[in-house]
Amino acid sequence: MTDVAAFSFDKLVIFGVGLIGGSLARALRERGDVGGARRVIGVGRSAASTARALELGVIDASAALTDDAALRDALQGADVVLLAAPVAQTQPLLERIAPFLDPQTIITDAGSTKSDVVAAARAALGGRINQFVPGHPIAGRESSGVDAALPDLYVNRNVVLCALPENAPNAVERIAAMWRATGASVHAMPAEQHDRVFASVSHLPHVLSFALVEQILNSPDAELKFSFAAGGFRDFTRIAASSPEMWRDVCVANRAALLDEIDGYTAVLARLRSAIEAGDGATLEAVFARSRTARSAWQERAAPKPSPARSATDDASK
Amino acid sequence: MTDVAAFSFDKLVIFGVGLIGGSLARALRERGDVGGARRVIGVGRSAASTARALELGVIDASAALTDDAALRDALQGADVVLLAAPVAQTQPLLERIAPFLDPQTIITDAGSTKSDVVAAARAALGGRINQFVPGHPIAGRESSGVDAALPDLYVNRNVVLCALPENAPNAVERIAAMWRATGASVHAMPAEQHDRVFASVSHLPHVLSFALVEQILNSPDAELKFSFAAGGFRDFTRIAASSPEMWRDVCVANRAALLDEIDGYTAVLARLRSAIEAGDGATLEAVFARSRTARSAWQERAAPKPSPARSATDDASK
Repeated sequence: MTDVAAFSFDKLVIFGVGLIGGSLARALRERGDVGGARRVIGVGRSAASTARALELGVIDASAALTDDAALRDALQGADVVLLAAPVAQTQPLLERIAPFLDPQTIITDAGSTKSDVVAAARAALGGRINQFVPGHPIAGRESSGVDAALPDLYVNRNVVLCALPENAPNAVERIAAMWRATGASVHAMPAEQHDRVFASVSHLPHVLSFALVEQILNSPDAELKFSFAAGGFRDFTRIAASSPEMWRDVCVANRAALLDEIDGYTAVLARLRSAIEAGDGATLEAVFARSRTARSAWQERAAPKPSPARSATDDASK
Repeated sequence: MTDVAAFSFDKLVIFGVGLIGGSLARALRERGDVGGARRVIGVGRSAASTARALELGVIDASAALTDDAALRDALQGADVVLLAAPVAQTQPLLERIAPFLDPQTIITDAGSTKSDVVAAARAALGGRINQFVPGHPIAGRESSGVDAALPDLYVNRNVVLCALPENAPNAVERIAAMWRATGASVHAMPAEQHDRVFASVSHLPHVLSFALVEQILNSPDAELKFSFAAGGFRDFTRIAASSPEMWRDVCVANRAALLDEIDGYTAVLARLRSAIEAGDGATLEAVFARSRTARSAWQERAAPKPSPARSATDDASK
């Protein structure tokens, strides 16, 4: 428990106070004795979203991104800065932050892709790249905006940190301790591996789900098909209701890994197609049975954990 | 309401008293004044499953498929026979039934594919094909077996009847009235169209879901990938926990339509791949936005209906 006890800081600055940033702020303020941030400042593109965060008590003060003086004040003496905006904004945001960045401040982010974020951070921060610890909290995004922010959003969720060679170990540990204080499990992984893993288990399924709806829409009897779609279709396409802008950015940002996954998937589908064409029931049944066994085993392991206490003992970024 | 009021019969024989057959029996016995069957006989391959159905009061009597005398008794004077066994058993079951089939009995089925079932029925019944009305109740199959059977499984669900040119209109209407009495909406469609529609909205998504799990299993870092799979993966692969035997049979039985859908899907995926490779965010966003809009509109329409009363006024098989 020493990691958790050691965690606390005076000033957290969040760029983008929506579901992800707002939930971090609420977790650090409301989860009692596990650690905290004495002062949280929200910075946003729109005055309306930071005003709402202030109204809800999620942040203590706000600053407009375009206001040099306010931004300087916000960043002065900041312990941690979280970027919780779409990944395509990483470089412009860091360029905006750089002139006001204190040498002891650690910046982290919450983007779904990491190699592109690292490249953007290197371009924007140059010699101060050691101050940037890339991160990715794996948390649901069915709803968005600060009104959807919850103090327990990260309980029993995974957070991946992709530490850079330039990062000081205590900088990485500080960000890990912050996330553990929210109830999350923190894991370390290089950015390239992160992008490969999430291309496979998250980005590819989103593309495949969008593609099925697109295929039906393009068919002459789309209405008829939709009218008989049932539970299997509902589950399979739930993620096709996700944000087009976010997934456009993810696809472009994680292009290389995602193309590899699409190619691998196309090859698996071609093998199944051949088996179907040949009426090769044995191959089909073997593949389906293997998938079902693996999916069921995953479901067992992934079942919600009863207690958030385990987070303190999980693998931490080194 | 005349259709519903007109419905009732003396003897229903169900081959395969599991979730689907058992739920029909329970619906017709327990849904009060909407119609019913005075006597329900269950026929099964295993004595255990019919014994359990008897114990639960789902059926009044049972017969073993292998017992000629019992089968003759069961089928004598039957108004309706429902085949609720895997589609691959359609032809052997009908060949077994044919010698004992009364001329006034109407046979229907509950298979997920229809062209192959029609071909099997023509082969087994020959000149008595007019007595066979192909059907497909679209009902959930997360659990199976007669213990999972529910009297309201079909309330607000769709049932598709693929009437044959040889069927007498009143034979089709009788089966339609039986399904409407369970609370279902009955729709008419040729077998080829049925198979195309369900290849698109059900069979293809199952294959795609199995394929994703297979791809991850075949990768060198499968364990790592599974350990970071989250909500999107869970929804997308829920149907990969389906019965390998059933989906093997469906893929083989509906081969032609399914191959067309796989080819169409592969083409859509290739187009998305090109857009990702080219960094063409505008195309990706347009496709994703179109899919999200269609998926959301479908969700609105497909939301559970509050009352089963509408079933009496829905489209009926003519």
